Amino acid sequence: MRFEVLTLFPDLIQAHMGFSIMKRASDDGIIEVITHNPRDYTIDKHKKVDDTPYGGGAGMVLMPQPYVDCYESVAKLENSLTIMMTPQGEPFTDAMSNEFAKHSQIIILCGHYEGFDERIREIIKPREISIGDFVLTGGELPALCIIDSISRKIEGTLGKIESAEDDSFSDGLLEYPQYTKPRNYRGLEVPEVLLNGNHKLIEDFRKEQKIKRTKLKRPDLYKNWQERS
Amino acid sequence: MRFEVLTLFPDLIQAHMGFSIMKRASDDGIIEVITHNPRDYTIDKHKKVDDTPYGGGAGMVLMPQPYVDCYESVAKLENSLTIMMTPQGEPFTDAMSNEFAKHSQIIILCGHYEGFDERIREIIKPREISIGDFVLTGGELPALCIIDSISRKIEGTLGKIESAEDDSFSDGLLEYPQYTKPRNYRGLEVPEVLLNGNHKLIEDFRKEQKIKRTKLKRPDLYKNWQERS
Repeated sequence: MRFEVLTLFPDLIQAHMGFSIMKRASDDGIIEVITHNPRDYTIDKHKKVDDTPYGGGAGMVLMPQPYVDCYESVAKLENSLTIMMTPQGEPFTDAMSNEFAKHSQIIILCGHYEGFDERIREIIKPREISIGDFVLTGGELPALCIIDSISRKIEGTLGKIESAEDDSFSDGLLEYPQYTKPRNYRGLEVPEVLLNGNHKLIEDFRKEQKIKRTKLKRPDLYKNWQERS
Repeated sequence: MRFEVLTLFPDLIQAHMGFSIMKRASDDGIIEVITHNPRDYTIDKHKKVDDTPYGGGAGMVLMPQPYVDCYESVAKLENSLTIMMTPQGEPFTDAMSNEFAKHSQIIILCGHYEGFDERIREIIKPREISIGDFVLTGGELPALCIIDSISRKIEGTLGKIESAEDDSFSDGLLEYPQYTKPRNYRGLEVPEVLLNGNHKLIEDFRKEQKIKRTKLKRPDLYKNWQERS
């Protein structure tokens, strides 16, 4: 999978890729993360990439020319997907990360400051994606979230593919409670059922816990799950 | 605001803080981001912080002792809030970032791998927060999202406080379209109304656009907004 990230802060993306599972996936050639800086494409003699908004208002708006020219410089592979990180996009979900993982190339447009000139949307026509109903300084953290989430779905990134299959949302429910050593910690015991090696009972316990905690913590997900079951 | 982040990958947090608006807020003393590594608190002679799950299954689970001891080593300020980044938490929202910004200290627990031993939740009793219905390798990116989003709400972080007031979600609607120079780009014109300097007409146009695009892109938000108006 080749991720190509358009960003004014390529170091924010690259700094993150040097650690943990993302580093390993990158070293193993499972993913490749390339950054492109629209500032390198501006034809403005002061290298400007943003300017004040027409109609007034605070903040700076990203000018169309550097972004569009930068985007058009990226060689498109077959089965390529272009997404724009924006609070106005569709909320990103686990199901979407499975779907996106099937592409060979994902081009990600990151905004910064007050956002994109509207004509960038009109010309590039990206799929607009949001990671949640909150606002950040730029699209770099959302882009990294999406890269991480999609990469986990590509075989070889995690030690065992099953590690992703047990995750929250993989079946529409939250994950069951996890326990590791010691059996007794400050008087709190690991549930007996997890210690006796009866796989059927363990599976039943976990399923029951998943349903119970989804119902309690996320009634919206529980309702969707019930309707589908 | 003092953020104290419990993480096995402190470099992931610190690397991000060296850039853009977060760096400026940190240099200006508006925010402070301190990391604490549970690995420094393990009493295991091999410095282990995770182990296999009781009851079987893939992946590694974070042991309670290093996390709880690390947490208890953090000096609590008055008006402190402890949150845990987990896909099982309440979905983080713009309204929550306003609420959290009123605290003087936010302690953030980041998981990694298959997640926390359940007893960490039971002992620390954090407020559990999720940034969305997808799964990541660790809680570090979500923690950074939350730090960024909250920091923007603290006076002095942004150049002008109004930059946050116009954002998406600040009034329950998505942001209006933004335009900057040039007036004509590849045949696409900036809407006439934004050029004539009539503030009342500009305000009406922007309000109408906000409502229109929220209705189109996020009918759920539109419904909530209608009910409140």
